[in-house]
Amino acid sequence: MTTASDWLNAQLARIPLALAMQISVVAAGAEAVRLRAPLAPNVNDKDCAFGGSIGALLMLTGWGLLSVQMRLAGEDCGIYIQDHALQFLKPGWGELETVALADPLQASKLPMQFRQRGRGRTAVQAELHSNGVCCARMQARYVALPA
Amino acid sequence: MTTASDWLNAQLARIPLALAMQISVVAAGAEAVRLRAPLAPNVNDKDCAFGGSIGALLMLTGWGLLSVQMRLAGEDCGIYIQDHALQFLKPGWGELETVALADPLQASKLPMQFRQRGRGRTAVQAELHSNGVCCARMQARYVALPA
Repeated sequence: MTTASDWLNAQLARIPLALAMQISVVAAGAEAVRLRAPLAPNVNDKDCAFGGSIGALLMLTGWGLLSVQMRLAGEDCGIYIQDHALQFLKPGWGELETVALADPLQASKLPMQFRQRGRGRTAVQAELHSNGVCCARMQARYVALPA
Repeated sequence: MTTASDWLNAQLARIPLALAMQISVVAAGAEAVRLRAPLAPNVNDKDCAFGGSIGALLMLTGWGLLSVQMRLAGEDCGIYIQDHALQFLKPGWGELETVALADPLQASKLPMQFRQRGRGRTAVQAELHSNGVCCARMQARYVALPA
């Protein structure tokens, strides 16, 4: 049986930029998704983490959490980002590690919305750490649409 | 003499992800910066533009505009993104083209702030189009710090 981590790794492998960033899944389940990426392919001109890499990794973390939740709920759908806000708090000087934790209420609401209305929308928060320092925070909204 | 476009292209070439995205400068000056990237290296799992690529391209467009403005004003500084908000309006199915237009008041204020205080902060807006459709809008704040 394919685990949620294997499944999410396979989804990420279909996105050229995720391959270029060398993103891998640390943990994936309905409660949380954790991704990581090495610094080298994700540096900016100052040799610390590039804001574009930070944003992409956070977006994929939120998208991964909802994709895994919907898959575990047996729903076949596409998850699309609608909008997000990002705060860059500190420069990142090491491996990039992200986490998106599920809000228990939200986790059950999205599959229910999608079953009832054929679409759904939800908010997700995610954080990025590097060398133990919280470097960035994202608040995002995603929609679930029929596959 | 190096034009602002050549200079900005050389800066982008120092960022591995900008190379992976095959970003190039269409136009660069104190009034506007326009970048573009082909779709192929920037697709998601649905074969349209990846949100992470859209975000990275918009961030670099705003960063490029301020970097060029400061260079033309004779200031040696680093430009860092502080926060941003992004709205994803439509999927992008072709080449990605961005523009950040200078607010004339802002353009002269940032170098002045930086000269007076040794740092400065400013807001920038940028848009991304594909096949003539506006796909995403960004509002961002950047800071200028000593190089």
